[in-house]
Amino acid sequence: MNTSEFRRRGKEMVDYVANYMEGIEGRQVYPDVEPGYLRPLIPDSAPQEPDTFEDIINDIEKIIMPGVTHWHSPYFFAYFPTASSYPAMLADMLCGAIGCIGFSWAASPACTELETVMMDWLGKMLELPKAFLTEKAGEGGGVIQGSASEATLVALLAARTKVIHRLQAASPELTQAAIMEKLVAYSSDQAHSSVERAGLIGGVKLKAIPSDGNFAMRASALQEALERDRAAGLIPFFVVATLGTTTCCSFDNLLEVGPICNKEDMWLHVDAAYAGSAFICPEFRHLLNGVEFADSFNFNPHKWLLVNFDCSAMWVKKRSDLTGAFRLDPTYLKHSHQDSGLITDYRHWQIPLGRRFRSLKMWFVFRMYGVKGLQAYIRKHVQLSHEFESLVLQDPRFEICAKVTLGLVCFRLKGSNKVNEALLQRINSARKIHLVPCHLRDKFVLRFAICSRTVESAHVQRAWEHIKELAADVLRAEKE
Amino acid sequence: MNTSEFRRRGKEMVDYVANYMEGIEGRQVYPDVEPGYLRPLIPDSAPQEPDTFEDIINDIEKIIMPGVTHWHSPYFFAYFPTASSYPAMLADMLCGAIGCIGFSWAASPACTELETVMMDWLGKMLELPKAFLTEKAGEGGGVIQGSASEATLVALLAARTKVIHRLQAASPELTQAAIMEKLVAYSSDQAHSSVERAGLIGGVKLKAIPSDGNFAMRASALQEALERDRAAGLIPFFVVATLGTTTCCSFDNLLEVGPICNKEDMWLHVDAAYAGSAFICPEFRHLLNGVEFADSFNFNPHKWLLVNFDCSAMWVKKRSDLTGAFRLDPTYLKHSHQDSGLITDYRHWQIPLGRRFRSLKMWFVFRMYGVKGLQAYIRKHVQLSHEFESLVLQDPRFEICAKVTLGLVCFRLKGSNKVNEALLQRINSARKIHLVPCHLRDKFVLRFAICSRTVESAHVQRAWEHIKELAADVLRAEKE
Repeated sequence: MNTSEFRRRGKEMVDYVANYMEGIEGRQVYPDVEPGYLRPLIPDSAPQEPDTFEDIINDIEKIIMPGVTHWHSPYFFAYFPTASSYPAMLADMLCGAIGCIGFSWAASPACTELETVMMDWLGKMLELPKAFLTEKAGEGGGVIQGSASEATLVALLAARTKVIHRLQAASPELTQAAIMEKLVAYSSDQAHSSVERAGLIGGVKLKAIPSDGNFAMRASALQEALERDRAAGLIPFFVVATLGTTTCCSFDNLLEVGPICNKEDMWLHVDAAYAGSAFICPEFRHLLNGVEFADSFNFNPHKWLLVNFDCSAMWVKKRSDLTGAFRLDPTYLKHSHQDSGLITDYRHWQIPLGRRFRSLKMWFVFRMYGVKGLQAYIRKHVQLSHEFESLVLQDPRFEICAKVTLGLVCFRLKGSNKVNEALLQRINSARKIHLVPCHLRDKFVLRFAICSRTVESAHVQRAWEHIKELAADVLRAEKE
Repeated sequence: MNTSEFRRRGKEMVDYVANYMEGIEGRQVYPDVEPGYLRPLIPDSAPQEPDTFEDIINDIEKIIMPGVTHWHSPYFFAYFPTASSYPAMLADMLCGAIGCIGFSWAASPACTELETVMMDWLGKMLELPKAFLTEKAGEGGGVIQGSASEATLVALLAARTKVIHRLQAASPELTQAAIMEKLVAYSSDQAHSSVERAGLIGGVKLKAIPSDGNFAMRASALQEALERDRAAGLIPFFVVATLGTTTCCSFDNLLEVGPICNKEDMWLHVDAAYAGSAFICPEFRHLLNGVEFADSFNFNPHKWLLVNFDCSAMWVKKRSDLTGAFRLDPTYLKHSHQDSGLITDYRHWQIPLGRRFRSLKMWFVFRMYGVKGLQAYIRKHVQLSHEFESLVLQDPRFEICAKVTLGLVCFRLKGSNKVNEALLQRINSARKIHLVPCHLRDKFVLRFAICSRTVESAHVQRAWEHIKELAADVLRAEKE
């Protein structure tokens, strides 16, 4: 494909994308296909000679779309939102064209420098403590990770290196293995599974702290675990506090947990993957209070801040904690500026070596929405979730299962797990809307997350009417 | 930005991208900027009210482009190629619009299923042993990782879990830490720094095996290390063999190393990050001989197979080795098909949870080039590197430092490291072409990598003329 054909096909693709977004409401949100549907539809090996672009574009509707779960449908209320906006898509086109790999400053200075500044912009929107920003040439700074999972893992590995160095400095005879065997990390029992996974990968114990009645980690439970583990000879070194859990958007008590971590010399990582975007609104900023106690903080603009996946924002108070854990400098990656102290080589901050020019997406989105536009977007979603909450509360057959703070409503039919499982099964079989469940303690609960950029009150109302009808069917079937 | 504005701006962006690619030869390949250049050019916080699209598009040339290293310039000969093609860019536009997160089959069946089939297509292009493919419902299969670093890490973690389980099954009293303390991984002293990093992250020793005169890992050196380490009570468990090292594109001797790994029950991971793309050509396929001994194999279509970053292809012989190392199943990610054995939840195969619909890029590229088009592309690059090699060989002041097999030429002025450092410094200061160096043993060497999709013989000839002139200057300056 030469450049002039790309001009033509690129514009056709822009129209295809625009048509897709415009018509998405008319598509069934969850597909009908069964596992293995795709393989029989395409050849079993790549063609020797080129296919035409027409063939391919036709195959999108024939082969791909029937198997797509439409995350941007206004009837998609599953998981958490994943961001989608036109400015981010435009930026991604530019990112693909520049196609630089930004592992070091020299590999493309603009890629590194725009990222540093965008992370400062975003940090300021959140009113993060200055210690996390780069601009005043302090010790902190921000980086774009691919996902919150990677941010948690990177934080855990940095904390692990730090505690090993500290203990070995005091007792040089200690081996790394002897220390690692005793290391313990903690998170709430409501934390995301990626925290447990970070523990597995890092080869350290991870203990779940029982959350309180509001599904929050509190000081007393953490303190109890610490005392028990220290008495058993273990070494607590790392705590993940979650702001906005995946199950029910509960908030660990940072103002209680933070000071304990500081006092006990444990690394505190704050994971606000979903909720973090809301902190750009002054009325939600208080939910971030206590972040000043943290060593690292992360949230996903690719969830709720209109920056398409992947863009997970992570800040640390001490850059050297990350780079100290990972730094390796082969000759082919060295460059003349790297020891100047003025520049950032982001490869030392992350698991992979390569990285795309992802800050372009932030730059386009922040500028084309403006802070006020982004705040309005968050507020609209929160308002819609409260609208759904009040609909649920008006129906005595249902109950709300956790406090609704942002865009997620956890609800269920009063009654058995079985009846709720049956309800969810009917909802997802009908395929008019899409939800996923969670467990809160022993209760099977339905999650209604406001997700789509284009979801409006009318969609929420229709979804609720539909849920009520199916609930009536389920309750009728139960009685029979 | 509404849909109709996106239609307009999207088409403008297509033209901007096309113009950029068409005019890239006229841009200076390496930028003039100094560290910190960007911050003074933009506001120190995000705007409250939206900027216009015109403002942003104008700022690209004013703020971003002056700091870009143009990886797709035909005068870029640094690092290794990073892929760029129009079909991949078109696919990425579609990927951004669909915007699904493919962590499980249910999260978007097409995303998972196209990936599985594309990995089979690619595996067949490489004539990988059938054990690595999914189609015959065997135990193996392929997955797209973000980078070769992640593939190596995932393989190491899977191997670690496997050996720990095996040893604990035999001796239940052994703790994980007691085992980890004794685990040893191996790679050649020419292996990429990401291998050492995987060892650091995984908390296991990594030992470098001295390579032979051709910079290849051989049986004898590996065997010697194994015997020494076993005698010291250590537990060898993991070997990374590199096909096409970053320093000089040397090839570890798989046919020697593979049988040792199988006999000694060590996981063999084959990293062909750069060279792997060439194996689609029958004349280079022999370089992959011995892959049948491997447990996992990886290369980067995002380097040399025209699939834009990120797309790192990884295959394993036993899917359960990966999923066994990582599997965690919270309720909000469970779905009704997951235990059917028919489906793949790729989140168990990788470090992050989220993933984009990256197989679309493979599908577009494989179909629009056809296998023959891809082979022609590889052959053109190999031919250009041999052309450069013969130019170097014709000049008695220079020497070739490693066998030229694919698209990389390692060369230097006969003489001191100092004179070669001076030459590189002049080359990169002149900014007409861009190269990076490497060390081969104690020699400072210049790497000339054929990178751009649009590089032709004329560019290589001009680059060589330029290098010769600067070499003359350096040699003259040395004499003075």
